[in-house]
Amino acid sequence: MSGRLTVIGLGPGSAEQVTPEASRAVAEAAFFYGYKPYVDRLDLGAHQTRIASDNREELARAKEALEKAAEGHSVAVVSGGDPGVFAMAAAVCEAIEAGPVEWRAIELGIVPGVTAMLAVAARAGAPLGHDFCAISLSDNLKPWDLIELRLLAAAGAGFVIALYNPISKARPWQLGRAFECLAAVLPGTTPVIFGRAAGRPDERIEVLPLALADPGKADMATCVIIGSPETRIIKRDGRSTLVYTPRSATGPSI
Amino acid sequence: MSGRLTVIGLGPGSAEQVTPEASRAVAEAAFFYGYKPYVDRLDLGAHQTRIASDNREELARAKEALEKAAEGHSVAVVSGGDPGVFAMAAAVCEAIEAGPVEWRAIELGIVPGVTAMLAVAARAGAPLGHDFCAISLSDNLKPWDLIELRLLAAAGAGFVIALYNPISKARPWQLGRAFECLAAVLPGTTPVIFGRAAGRPDERIEVLPLALADPGKADMATCVIIGSPETRIIKRDGRSTLVYTPRSATGPSI
Repeated sequence: MSGRLTVIGLGPGSAEQVTPEASRAVAEAAFFYGYKPYVDRLDLGAHQTRIASDNREELARAKEALEKAAEGHSVAVVSGGDPGVFAMAAAVCEAIEAGPVEWRAIELGIVPGVTAMLAVAARAGAPLGHDFCAISLSDNLKPWDLIELRLLAAAGAGFVIALYNPISKARPWQLGRAFECLAAVLPGTTPVIFGRAAGRPDERIEVLPLALADPGKADMATCVIIGSPETRIIKRDGRSTLVYTPRSATGPSI
Repeated sequence: MSGRLTVIGLGPGSAEQVTPEASRAVAEAAFFYGYKPYVDRLDLGAHQTRIASDNREELARAKEALEKAAEGHSVAVVSGGDPGVFAMAAAVCEAIEAGPVEWRAIELGIVPGVTAMLAVAARAGAPLGHDFCAISLSDNLKPWDLIELRLLAAAGAGFVIALYNPISKARPWQLGRAFECLAAVLPGTTPVIFGRAAGRPDERIEVLPLALADPGKADMATCVIIGSPETRIIKRDGRSTLVYTPRSATGPSI
């Protein structure tokens, strides 16, 4: 007997940004697996069970959830933001591919959500208004050289760059090194947005030129967006500065 | 007297994927500007007014909306998906920068939404599970050479690629040409996802290898996702094939 596993995106943090589809999926599941801060966000009933784990245990968590679903239960795996962007949907697929054939019979659903870069971009203006990319700065699962190659390829081709997992206690130098790499190919005036906890009460959005971008302004909950050479700034008296990338482009200016 | 302008993301199409924040913003506005199919989605009251326009009139629409807001009205501009991704938020910022200084005093809000690539990815598995980029294939506002340069840079560096605006009556050959470019640098087995109307009753998700990818499978409402060399396929008896990109990467294999 095989149950159901739903991977649910809870959005960037505000209850106002959780889709009705995600709320319904939460209401319908019995067991909830996830990184503790995400599982803690859930408003569950007495018949629903939380199984929280640490944030570097994605594959183990995915396997546990699949085992529970394979026993016939209705199981949810929750992610912040969108579960398909540097989050649990890929870990669940990895576990299914490597796992027993019964896991392929489980009814799998994935519920998308508003991912961090979209929430941060909305608070800053429209920095992702033209071609852009998303890069995880974590070198836990890929070599640092590959990250540098991607940063340089993206900046060189004129993409705006959203950085996920920019910094952590175990990875203190990577963001500073990324800024150095980018400063070698992008103008020092390129806007850099540090977006933390977008849409939540403790939200903090800061915009600095690349030449002055300080990695210390980021933490694990920050999404960093680095403009392209086409990205522009609009100053407004008494209102926050807008950062946007025009819909039109003439070519890579670098 | 200056009013308020809110740029609202309505998500990919299903009412279940509209955030509560977006629904509230719709309830609070009086005048609604947007491309007709998006404005038509709104469930409005008798005191609310729709002003629909064609899909190549973004800048004119943004200016009209700003003029209305500057008169003191509560105005909304609506986009499908997320308004910051190849949509109206950038057009509004362009209009503000070029427009009268009074427009900078307007209270501007941007409400993020689930953008098409996230909805399509969720239905296919986790193709965006690792570093990825989003490229608009429209050469109305940028030269085609720049699009090719970006496609090749992204594929060469191992990014998964989401293509927005892949094809239209006025742009019939660009998607086929993009597949040709990518086939020169990516394996013919690379999975290509054609995702149309994700989450809606007329949803159609198809997965083909790049060597067999047929541009005729896409229309204006399709988001096309092209895997990286690391992207994998999981076949499941009696269930849809899963496409995912693992969280780990060893390097660009091309």
